Amino acid sequence: MGNCCEHFRNFFCGNKNTNVRVSLPAVCFVWQIAMIVLFGVFIRYDEESDSHWSEVKKHHNISSDIENDFYYRYPSFQDVHVMIFVGFGFLMTFLKRYSFGGVGFNFLIASFGLQWALLMQGWFHTLDHSTGKIYIGVESLINADFCCAGCLIAYGALLGKVSPVQLMVVTLFGITLFAVEEFIILSLLHCRDAGGSMVIHAFGGYYGLAISWVLYRPNLHQSRRLNGSVYHSDVFAMIGTLFLWMFWPSFNSAITDHGDGQHRAAINTYLALASSVLTTVAISSMSQKKGKLDMVHIQNATLAGGVAMGTAAEFMITPYGSLIVGFCCGIISTFGYLFVSPFLEKYLKLQDTCGIHNLHAMPGMLGGFIGAIVAASATEEVYSKEGLISTFDFEGKFENRTVGTQGGYQAAGTCVSIAFGLVGGAIVGLILRLPLWGGPADDNCFDDEVYWEVPEEEESIPPILEYNNHMIHKHPDISESNFSVDQN
Amino acid sequence: MGNCCEHFRNFFCGNKNTNVRVSLPAVCFVWQIAMIVLFGVFIRYDEESDSHWSEVKKHHNISSDIENDFYYRYPSFQDVHVMIFVGFGFLMTFLKRYSFGGVGFNFLIASFGLQWALLMQGWFHTLDHSTGKIYIGVESLINADFCCAGCLIAYGALLGKVSPVQLMVVTLFGITLFAVEEFIILSLLHCRDAGGSMVIHAFGGYYGLAISWVLYRPNLHQSRRLNGSVYHSDVFAMIGTLFLWMFWPSFNSAITDHGDGQHRAAINTYLALASSVLTTVAISSMSQKKGKLDMVHIQNATLAGGVAMGTAAEFMITPYGSLIVGFCCGIISTFGYLFVSPFLEKYLKLQDTCGIHNLHAMPGMLGGFIGAIVAASATEEVYSKEGLISTFDFEGKFENRTVGTQGGYQAAGTCVSIAFGLVGGAIVGLILRLPLWGGPADDNCFDDEVYWEVPEEEESIPPILEYNNHMIHKHPDISESNFSVDQN
Amino acid sequence: MGNCCEHFRNFFCGNKNTNVRVSLPAVCFVWQIAMIVLFGVFIRYDEESDSHWSEVKKHHNISSDIENDFYYRYPSFQDVHVMIFVGFGFLMTFLKRYSFGGVGFNFLIASFGLQWALLMQGWFHTLDHSTGKIYIGVESLINADFCCAGCLIAYGALLGKVSPVQLMVVTLFGITLFAVEEFIILSLLHCRDAGGSMVIHAFGGYYGLAISWVLYRPNLHQSRRLNGSVYHSDVFAMIGTLFLWMFWPSFNSAITDHGDGQHRAAINTYLALASSVLTTVAISSMSQKKGKLDMVHIQNATLAGGVAMGTAAEFMITPYGSLIVGFCCGIISTFGYLFVSPFLEKYLKLQDTCGIHNLHAMPGMLGGFIGAIVAASATEEVYSKEGLISTFDFEGKFENRTVGTQGGYQAAGTCVSIAFGLVGGAIVGLILRLPLWGGPADDNCFDDEVYWEVPEEEESIPPILEYNNHMIHKHPDISESNFSVDQN
Repeated sequence: MGNCCEHFRNFFCGNKNTNVRVSLPAVCFVWQIAMIVLFGVFIRYDEESDSHWSEVKKHHNISSDIENDFYYRYPSFQDVHVMIFVGFGFLMTFLKRYSFGGVGFNFLIASFGLQWALLMQGWFHTLDHSTGKIYIGVESLINADFCCAGCLIAYGALLGKVSPVQLMVVTLFGITLFAVEEFIILSLLHCRDAGGSMVIHAFGGYYGLAISWVLYRPNLHQSRRLNGSVYHSDVFAMIGTLFLWMFWPSFNSAITDHGDGQHRAAINTYLALASSVLTTVAISSMSQKKGKLDMVHIQNATLAGGVAMGTAAEFMITPYGSLIVGFCCGIISTFGYLFVSPFLEKYLKLQDTCGIHNLHAMPGMLGGFIGAIVAASATEEVYSKEGLISTFDFEGKFENRTVGTQGGYQAAGTCVSIAFGLVGGAIVGLILRLPLWGGPADDNCFDDEVYWEVPEEEESIPPILEYNNHMIHKHPDISESNFSVDQN
Repeated sequence: MGNCCEHFRNFFCGNKNTNVRVSLPAVCFVWQIAMIVLFGVFIRYDEESDSHWSEVKKHHNISSDIENDFYYRYPSFQDVHVMIFVGFGFLMTFLKRYSFGGVGFNFLIASFGLQWALLMQGWFHTLDHSTGKIYIGVESLINADFCCAGCLIAYGALLGKVSPVQLMVVTLFGITLFAVEEFIILSLLHCRDAGGSMVIHAFGGYYGLAISWVLYRPNLHQSRRLNGSVYHSDVFAMIGTLFLWMFWPSFNSAITDHGDGQHRAAINTYLALASSVLTTVAISSMSQKKGKLDMVHIQNATLAGGVAMGTAAEFMITPYGSLIVGFCCGIISTFGYLFVSPFLEKYLKLQDTCGIHNLHAMPGMLGGFIGAIVAASATEEVYSKEGLISTFDFEGKFENRTVGTQGGYQAAGTCVSIAFGLVGGAIVGLILRLPLWGGPADDNCFDDEVYWEVPEEEESIPPILEYNNHMIHKHPDISESNFSVDQN
Repeated sequence: MGNCCEHFRNFFCGNKNTNVRVSLPAVCFVWQIAMIVLFGVFIRYDEESDSHWSEVKKHHNISSDIENDFYYRYPSFQDVHVMIFVGFGFLMTFLKRYSFGGVGFNFLIASFGLQWALLMQGWFHTLDHSTGKIYIGVESLINADFCCAGCLIAYGALLGKVSPVQLMVVTLFGITLFAVEEFIILSLLHCRDAGGSMVIHAFGGYYGLAISWVLYRPNLHQSRRLNGSVYHSDVFAMIGTLFLWMFWPSFNSAITDHGDGQHRAAINTYLALASSVLTTVAISSMSQKKGKLDMVHIQNATLAGGVAMGTAAEFMITPYGSLIVGFCCGIISTFGYLFVSPFLEKYLKLQDTCGIHNLHAMPGMLGGFIGAIVAASATEEVYSKEGLISTFDFEGKFENRTVGTQGGYQAAGTCVSIAFGLVGGAIVGLILRLPLWGGPADDNCFDDEVYWEVPEEEESIPPILEYNNHMIHKHPDISESNFSVDQN
């Protein structure tokens, strides 16, 4: 009878069939084939990666191969690449039994996302209307990686609660929305956002939060036993934290102007991050009775300074300005983990596994407004005439824009990114509620067993067992009872 | 009596004395001293790393220090260096009790190999016959690292079944064979193979497989309990996978032509790798009843696209061509893990611990033939006249070679690399069967205990023990029996 | 009564109140605010990172943005950055229960140290007396990271035995002392020390040893159970080792002269490190009855070649000279771990957790003297006239210095760095003995529980528990006795 009820419940509330044997391969194959076809139609090498380069060099009177953009940006690209795959991936290994899913699904969705991003960003930003082609080079690869970052941030809110098929859907729509909001913010509003406080972090953060809000699981406490770390999984997560932290200067400087632009963005980010670490440690220690530090804070809030410098890093924010930004964001982000996340979960029904609200959404939004303020207060004295034009790209039809107006547009851009995140996320969340994506049951979240072949337990290594057997033989009263002490 | 038989068996079938206290130090010392002597005789700084550089600059009218090859290639060199030591090293930590051996012996043999490679490659490729010296610079270091890669691939097949002394022998001969086959393929046949599909992967793969075939252990099942992963060792292996995956664009572009050559090779490899991930996930999921993913596939087959692009990456294979290569190789490599490896083990008596047949040998061979096809179909229209000459290096005595001929030579080069791998590996395998290298017994494979001081078990940390004691005191019926529940 | 005695003992011998809830946040906040104020007063962008760069370019007739120092040094900077945070951080995760402290406190003190270093080094080296400002660029960031390295080395000796507040004090004074000794050695004595054998390693090593000597704990054996590694913590430490090892060529070449200087320093370091690995393995294997390798040696002594090349790497030491340096230092460092460390602990009362004497102090000192010898034996024939001047910077008031004199000054510089380390460390050690820093008790060292919220044990994951329950039900004789077999 009870059994019958259970079947009934499973059938209707259900969609808890976690078998993705058809859907996952289907999605991967169909989308990858679509990518190949679309790349065949649209994507070509740009002039710096095409073998006509030697002719281009002559034509533009370029003296040396070192002027190829590859040498300006490739080291930064590789740093960004590490952040996307190792940084985000390992940051999400902190759960005791979801490390495979953390690093593995991160790998999957970023690999799909970057292909789709090359197309979407190409159509919106670099499509050559005379030939109908998108020409890609190293800067396109960096932008594609950036675009993935938005979706990986969203994954942080959903970690452990969705199937890989759902993640592919999140990525498909996320990249699409990203390219649109980026086009509006960077091209139409003509904002500057080299490190993506607005277009990456605020958007990605609110996108993930909105999805998570729609997918609210009232019975998630049934998986509570797995929603936490163990000692070594916290150390694995520190690999992610540190690679994100170290390479964030490259993230914020990767696509800024050659020369002083890249140089300054790297310095500013470096300083803001250092400052974040100290205030994170301070607040984390203060929050505990005995002053003990919490790994969750160290793993996450230390990065808030980098997020918040995403827009302003290329501006003349000054070194001490960077320190102040990091100082404040370390505090705000740690407070977020201490007070805002529990509040959101309790009162707004918002389950945010990695606390992306505190690390990306809020600092990203702040970063957008900081950028607006710094832009609005720019002066020709500080920037030099030429520097002002090149930093804010006041050229062509934006030739006569003042820094005040620019500041206003920067603030508007931040709002656009948040709006896109929230509305887009809500819609995608509704799509994900359709009962066909193979999401896990409430008592099965945060568990790699659902989507991965998980190896036997470490404790089963025979030498230990033999040792136990040995023990047993020495204690006949136990061995006689046929009792196996420690077989797990 | 049985005991006596055992002694007898050990004596004759033996060579299972795993004591390497004499042989390992002897090999390390003697070979390192030999390196010092040979370096003293042969190796000098090249003109870009010699302090005469400022004169060279004036003489060749070089305007700036940035034209030093160091700035073109050093970032790529460091990426390749990470692949060799962290990439290969951590990929081989996946076994539950052979992580020390995986990363540690990788470290040892690569450190020896790169020295010997500088000499061997120097003698064959860059020896200045007027002075009798080899002049080295950053490109030599990259080539030396590449050369090591061949031997580390071979180590993948042997992982857990050989002693460090045997590995040093594998490396000594492997580097030697590598330099010869590379000379034949690149210099005599004038093939292009910047990322080494042929000279590195096909050679290294078949070299390792041939050695493993000769060293077949019919009783390896006695170590079966250790031939598998545990949860955290799989996460460690993902560090290796990701660093290989992320930096593969640097691997394939590290020694290609300055400018568009490096730029294009990086883009092509980036795309092929992304495509591999999706098809690997698809096949892995399809192969399991419930659509669960297998970490072995994710750790390995996702890299197949990079291997297969080793030759063609610098050509105008087009972005969608790169995606197609990755698409196919992800499928083929995953099928290899599912069907070919068990087949090889069962019918060909070939024990391949890491499945290098599926990740290196087969995709490397394919990459060689893909390169041949892409080369044969090159046109002046696509490459430009100058681009065609510089891409295929149709200069000097190869001035009049056609792309069709080039394609034929590329295919021939692939066959040469496989032949060198198979024949050389078989001979080296026979040498390794001599009973003096300290290899492990059949029931002792995949076990760090044999060659490493392994620390006590994690479980023995006292707080846990205290907890148990506490438990015991609450259950007098047990504690009285003097029984220690969990002493391991 | 016994309880009373205990209270009494705690009160007097005490200072074992490990509560840092007030002191740690106070130190972090106050010092970070001080940094902001001092940065506001002193620190500005240099001309290559300021938006006036386009004017500077015109003024100095610089043809291209690629001439910005950012493109010469940023890739090396990022490698050094990885060494500081991941390299040193993960190298110190080897203890079974101090991985959080190893990587986390490393993160904290480096983040503070680099800010303070920018100021201290700025005041001593780059203060513009006309404006009273310090102008920073990418080279300043590298130098700040270098400066932190000195303090992180000192942390290696103290690992597990001090509180984070004590570490902040060690860093504050360490950076200060570093800047002074660096000024004396590089500016007054006009030594060359690009990779810091003297100023970083010898200083940092002896600084840490002197502190540790003053803080000697006679009852440290009470924490002996935690002063060791477990299997996975040793693998984590290998991440640190390998990133240090791989990027050491960048460390030693990061601030050498553009062009051949950077190129040569990278090659020399690469070779010395490779050579170190082989001799470390040889000695490690010889030292054990069965020839087994010890992870402690592989993790540490393999790096000794890089330390010892810190001064000489930019000189024309020749490739085989580099191999010889690595050869000797691998042997010396491993012998240090085998014999010198136990001797120091027993007879000099010196507790050196990571063995920095063997990895930094001794090889650093040797590196200083090697540099002196190589400098003294420089000839115009080998270096070229111009090369000799640029390598040793024989310009301005040092125009007439001979190489012999230079050698003498290099040796003197080494002695200065050691003296600063020993005297400075002794004084800082005395400061740290004040009973107000919250250091751990003797039976509480090497334990993350003291300063970190440590997650529950891995073994507590329920599936295992369920399995046990299942077992119990099958063995009624046990389950009836209400006995919980394995609840930890």
